[in-house]
Amino acid sequence: MRQSTLFHNTLRESPSDAEVVSHQLMLRAGFIRQLAAGIYTYMPLGRRVLRKAEQIVREEMDRAGAQELLMPAMQPAELWKESGRYSQYGPELIRLRDRHDREFALGPTHEEVITSLVTNEINSYRRLPVTLYQIQTKFRDERRPRFGLLRGREFLMKDAYSFDTDWKGLDRSYWNMFHAYQRIFTRLGINFRAVEADAGTIGGEGGTHEFMALADIGEDTIAACTCCDYAANLEKAESGTTDIPDGQMISDDDTEVEKFYTPEIKTIEQLVQSLQISPMDIIKTVVFIADDKVVAVAVRGDHEINEIKVKNYLGAQDIVIADSEALAKISGVTVGFIGPMDLPFPVLVDHTVAHMTSGIAGANELNHHVRNLYPIRDLELTHVGDFRNVTEGEKCPRCEEGILKFNRGIEIGHVFKLGTKYSEQLGATFLDPSGKEQTMIMGCYGIGVSRILSAVIEQNHDDNGVIWPTTLAPFQVHLIPISIKDDKQTELAQKLYHLLLENGIEVLMDDRDERPGVKFKDSDLIGIPIRIIVGKGAEQEHVEITLRKHNVKESLHVDDAIARINELVKSIH
Amino acid sequence: MRQSTLFHNTLRESPSDAEVVSHQLMLRAGFIRQLAAGIYTYMPLGRRVLRKAEQIVREEMDRAGAQELLMPAMQPAELWKESGRYSQYGPELIRLRDRHDREFALGPTHEEVITSLVTNEINSYRRLPVTLYQIQTKFRDERRPRFGLLRGREFLMKDAYSFDTDWKGLDRSYWNMFHAYQRIFTRLGINFRAVEADAGTIGGEGGTHEFMALADIGEDTIAACTCCDYAANLEKAESGTTDIPDGQMISDDDTEVEKFYTPEIKTIEQLVQSLQISPMDIIKTVVFIADDKVVAVAVRGDHEINEIKVKNYLGAQDIVIADSEALAKISGVTVGFIGPMDLPFPVLVDHTVAHMTSGIAGANELNHHVRNLYPIRDLELTHVGDFRNVTEGEKCPRCEEGILKFNRGIEIGHVFKLGTKYSEQLGATFLDPSGKEQTMIMGCYGIGVSRILSAVIEQNHDDNGVIWPTTLAPFQVHLIPISIKDDKQTELAQKLYHLLLENGIEVLMDDRDERPGVKFKDSDLIGIPIRIIVGKGAEQEHVEITLRKHNVKESLHVDDAIARINELVKSIH
Repeated sequence: MRQSTLFHNTLRESPSDAEVVSHQLMLRAGFIRQLAAGIYTYMPLGRRVLRKAEQIVREEMDRAGAQELLMPAMQPAELWKESGRYSQYGPELIRLRDRHDREFALGPTHEEVITSLVTNEINSYRRLPVTLYQIQTKFRDERRPRFGLLRGREFLMKDAYSFDTDWKGLDRSYWNMFHAYQRIFTRLGINFRAVEADAGTIGGEGGTHEFMALADIGEDTIAACTCCDYAANLEKAESGTTDIPDGQMISDDDTEVEKFYTPEIKTIEQLVQSLQISPMDIIKTVVFIADDKVVAVAVRGDHEINEIKVKNYLGAQDIVIADSEALAKISGVTVGFIGPMDLPFPVLVDHTVAHMTSGIAGANELNHHVRNLYPIRDLELTHVGDFRNVTEGEKCPRCEEGILKFNRGIEIGHVFKLGTKYSEQLGATFLDPSGKEQTMIMGCYGIGVSRILSAVIEQNHDDNGVIWPTTLAPFQVHLIPISIKDDKQTELAQKLYHLLLENGIEVLMDDRDERPGVKFKDSDLIGIPIRIIVGKGAEQEHVEITLRKHNVKESLHVDDAIARINELVKSIH
Repeated sequence: MRQSTLFHNTLRESPSDAEVVSHQLMLRAGFIRQLAAGIYTYMPLGRRVLRKAEQIVREEMDRAGAQELLMPAMQPAELWKESGRYSQYGPELIRLRDRHDREFALGPTHEEVITSLVTNEINSYRRLPVTLYQIQTKFRDERRPRFGLLRGREFLMKDAYSFDTDWKGLDRSYWNMFHAYQRIFTRLGINFRAVEADAGTIGGEGGTHEFMALADIGEDTIAACTCCDYAANLEKAESGTTDIPDGQMISDDDTEVEKFYTPEIKTIEQLVQSLQISPMDIIKTVVFIADDKVVAVAVRGDHEINEIKVKNYLGAQDIVIADSEALAKISGVTVGFIGPMDLPFPVLVDHTVAHMTSGIAGANELNHHVRNLYPIRDLELTHVGDFRNVTEGEKCPRCEEGILKFNRGIEIGHVFKLGTKYSEQLGATFLDPSGKEQTMIMGCYGIGVSRILSAVIEQNHDDNGVIWPTTLAPFQVHLIPISIKDDKQTELAQKLYHLLLENGIEVLMDDRDERPGVKFKDSDLIGIPIRIIVGKGAEQEHVEITLRKHNVKESLHVDDAIARINELVKSIH
């Protein structure tokens, strides 16, 4: 393609609302343009990259034996009511009414539609298993769309769904998709980790993994072992239960719990300062309302409560921290002075607290705390478990050799064992070999196709612009005649341009009448991996090849260029 | 692909609401399934066909130099208000509000978005012309969705938009797209005509052509010349002004207009019967309200008024026939007795009427008509023009040698000179070489990609099912071992299956444990063009090749099969 005719602009400045590098570069390099908050147009260069991502996803899905179909974006609300998600999904679900006042949702995901479809089409075990996928535009009305394609309201997704006769089959389907995802993200040149994750609100029992592209701007924290391959989202990462370090203070059976006066001392920090102790000596207690029950959770002062773990332990749909008003009503205690002793509702005690020998905690009385609290003696310990986030540097819960290191990650894929959540609600059954009706066992598998572009740029850029991996680059070669007013250069560039096209190499030729500085700056921004410069050497039919990744120049005769380019296309990533 | 694992069902009966063959066959052959009225899922086989259609459209767009991008479906209502279409579009435009109560429309078309985008990106004549396209899901809330993919509410469209500096440039862009469309529909194997059409409500001056697939179920009538290449939609087709046949009755200047009593005779049919005359002797007069003006239109009794022509003549936005109540109020005359004489508002007289020498018309008085009406003498004839539909068999308005024949057609494509309608409203200007601000001249070009499937099936089927052209077929070869319980057959089929795959031939192997009758019936329904049957000849490594189109059998050795299939793939259409 000739750049003079390309519908494309680079921007000198990045718009002020672009907070992260990938968003800034996509706008500056002219890959996308915003139409409304979280809603983007893919410009010709961006469309090319997106199509390459699509194609890699499609090829690996096909190779894994998944079958492509295409479901509608407009979904009747009735289906969502059947599954119960119409009310659960909240304002992220875009709703509309047609001219006959019938309710529809714009699909953020397609569990309902696919389950209902498979229910109608399949009724015998002979037709299972089956995995179906589509690459399709999804809609989600994010509360705060941001980071460009990372959190948009209209985005391209690959969603797949598997249907099996039993849980063993689901396991096979699940790992089949898991391995397809590994191949996809490897081909896309992404530095990723597959991490154990929490099942979240989409529902269902069993395992789930998130595929995370490592990036500082990631909204999720990943805890990964330095020795074994254990990796999990912070919300899911397990804390070890043995060998737990304790605070400095030690109680024994003779040292009784003692209440003391702590006027206006309401926070861990205030306690630490006024008593000159470590947060490890403190027991932090927080009261939650879980669905409609009240519970307290006690973790050590230096730890954070993991609400997902609490929620899962209780089997609750929804938990919220009791605010000061609710707390006073429930327990008669003011915020800042709540403690785990003698509460009229269950107390969930984290392993670390259960191992403490002497703790300071709220006394459940205004302006008072207690000291010498020895949980094994002073608390009931009916509910001991893992209720906190792991901390960086603690021992791996699996191998117990390595320690956990933290990384930030961008979720680019998700594999999920749905089990029977949707098949039960929507009646997806089949007849087994004995003629008995059984419920299908489902899995769902998503890849944020448009999001991949952001993740790749976060991992592949420098101060001057994007550095595309060859598999995703909008073109493989950027051919730049330094001056199109120089006949020799123009002639040689034209010759090479046609040679490249004839050899099936995708080439963008910068035939614009611009200064070399402008051309190189734009070329750096766009980030095509291989650059061929036609300059002074044109007289001798020499051209220069450089890679966007590292600025090593290589001068060679035009007759050798094609062979060299073919080599480079294959070798660089 | 192995049919035993394909997510696919054929249906014995077609659902009762499927009125046309293409809809019936798409459902029966398992290409689509309905989710809601006018909203369909493409099943794996249908998705394959759709992707092939997409790919052909994309290749020809690229070849024509159009650049692919991807615009959002969700469009801010403000843009539609700027263009004035938010109110004009009516209930076909699907509207919604986001969580912040901002209004959006789901794009049925993208003139506003693309014009606004180009306005922001291009400001110099140096960057023009440019043609941009996308292949994208569109939404239109049809009042009466029907005929499967022909009139759906969510459908796949290729829409393109050209931007030029002047009208000459638009001409070039327009014909460039026109020729690309000819290539596309030819490759798709469609029997089509490009016909002149009316500009309709999308707006703009200048020419427009519709690409019509000829089919009896088409909602549009095409009038095409038997000699020259004149072809037009009925709404647009011009009636010749010369050599107009007249009725039998002849008046001269001595025969005066005479009123006569015609009790309860209100229709052309009643007049014809009671007076024993021909409809050609009657002048039919209809009163319209055009925007807020009243006009009458007079055509010959055997002709139909063409409201589009009337509207265009008047430059009106909207015209409706005055109902009996309105008519009485306007003219004091009852329906059935209106005539063209002495009306207190303008009368548009069709050429054919102006050429009459003696007509019968309403007398503008209850239960009375007039005879001996000689328009050239008795009417003012201030507004004489072409206000009627052409009739089949009349002379071609261009070559005057051929006659017009009627065909029904399905609109599959549309090229349209928009001119400055959107660029003016949305401020799409550029600086010309002298630094003067000018308005861009636009064209828009649509292809109903999903609709193509319906059109192709309407043209390519028999009583047993679909007959796909090779370019669109979900697979090129249907490989059918008669009995998978026969080891020889299964072995030979497997061998051939892998040979075909290795040679890049798309093959569906019916490895299901079904009776031959079921397999052949399903195969006929699905309509894959080449069929290879592995039956009794398997012992001698012989297979049978037949074409779906005509049932000629060819028996050959498996070693010769690949060469023969390659020949067939190239030669058959």
